[in-house]
Amino acid sequence: MSDQPTKAVILLSGGLDSATVGAIAKSSGRELYALSVDYGQRHRFELDSAKRVANSLEVKEHRVLKIDLAQFGGSALTDNIEVPQGRSDSEISTGIPITYVPARNTVMLSLALAYAEVIRAKEILVGVNAIDYSGYPDCRPEFVNAFERLANLATSVGVEAEAAGKEPAIRIWAPLIDMSKSEIIRRGIELGVDYGLTHTCYSPDENGISCEKCDACLLRKQGFLEAGAKDPIKYQC
Amino acid sequence: MSDQPTKAVILLSGGLDSATVGAIAKSSGRELYALSVDYGQRHRFELDSAKRVANSLEVKEHRVLKIDLAQFGGSALTDNIEVPQGRSDSEISTGIPITYVPARNTVMLSLALAYAEVIRAKEILVGVNAIDYSGYPDCRPEFVNAFERLANLATSVGVEAEAAGKEPAIRIWAPLIDMSKSEIIRRGIELGVDYGLTHTCYSPDENGISCEKCDACLLRKQGFLEAGAKDPIKYQC
Repeated sequence: MSDQPTKAVILLSGGLDSATVGAIAKSSGRELYALSVDYGQRHRFELDSAKRVANSLEVKEHRVLKIDLAQFGGSALTDNIEVPQGRSDSEISTGIPITYVPARNTVMLSLALAYAEVIRAKEILVGVNAIDYSGYPDCRPEFVNAFERLANLATSVGVEAEAAGKEPAIRIWAPLIDMSKSEIIRRGIELGVDYGLTHTCYSPDENGISCEKCDACLLRKQGFLEAGAKDPIKYQC
Repeated sequence: MSDQPTKAVILLSGGLDSATVGAIAKSSGRELYALSVDYGQRHRFELDSAKRVANSLEVKEHRVLKIDLAQFGGSALTDNIEVPQGRSDSEISTGIPITYVPARNTVMLSLALAYAEVIRAKEILVGVNAIDYSGYPDCRPEFVNAFERLANLATSVGVEAEAAGKEPAIRIWAPLIDMSKSEIIRRGIELGVDYGLTHTCYSPDENGISCEKCDACLLRKQGFLEAGAKDPIKYQC
């Protein structure tokens, strides 16, 4: 039994954070099953990046699940609302961003839970991060802990483990939760992550080239600057 | 403000339970927004029933969200595993049924939460019931309470209400949670529910006619018997 690697479902967006989570998990010997959720995001380049990152992580399986969250509206990422550009750090970190997708992490973690239950994975890995995106309520440790509690109440493995007085059967692991963007990038570089495979921009051009002006690009740029590293992706100029 | 009816998202499956929840909510003056999730269930007749029930409840809006949970496998309801038939009450109530869909209520409630957040609904109504389906871990009060906690941590309205020391902004209301099937049916009949619009069977024939032998049909039949009422739907014979 102890020879078996721990099976883990990883939510892979194609962004910098989840690529780093994948590298951390792989370096600790997890067997990875990647799940990407196509929730109707405008920047489809994310999913192409997710595929490239999944390949580089040599995951056992990569599933892409389509769900039309855009039909509910409510966010610049899935609506036709304009994505804000050129905002300062203090503007970015104040309040709940317009790019918020309703209940996104709740939805994505519950889909990961369904997948985990079927393949009997004990862990769900997610790249949420409370520091640089403090405006998103579902990126906080309280949220992650509440989801772990829910996951163990919701599933047969969780219920059986609790009845037997064992440890929670399902763990939600968010290794980036208290890391800054530059710490994430430094850790990823140590682990050999190729950030050239990732996609971050909310407003790419028709070739997927990043705008360098939206909140996501600005945070990424700042992160590489503070990490003293060069961002391998191209920007519009 | 107090003149406005409470907006509520109701998860409508097309079955007997959610039709009854809808009638309870409507009788208490809620403004209903129905959500049906097409999760790749084999018995597509459920969704037709959901539409009929939504009409009869005069909901403000009915959304059908497609999500291919069947791609994960793991259940007789979405796989090609045979649905058990002719089981006794004690067999039905023992253990976790083969018809369990992985993380189904977690997924459906999180989709309802996304919808609720966008339309600013304060309630999510769900027909889960701990008595007759005790084998499903995600039909228990502990699960419903844990989801309510999560919902308020996950969303901007929940976070804002907590910061202001107010009541939880989002309530998960499961009015059937401790009712038996016959109690549900009696309550529904009092409220004028037309159970002829609903669909329950796991193994209908090609015309949607119920088998009368699967667990769901057996529980329904028993419920009508105990309620002393006639089931208006047709069965194969």
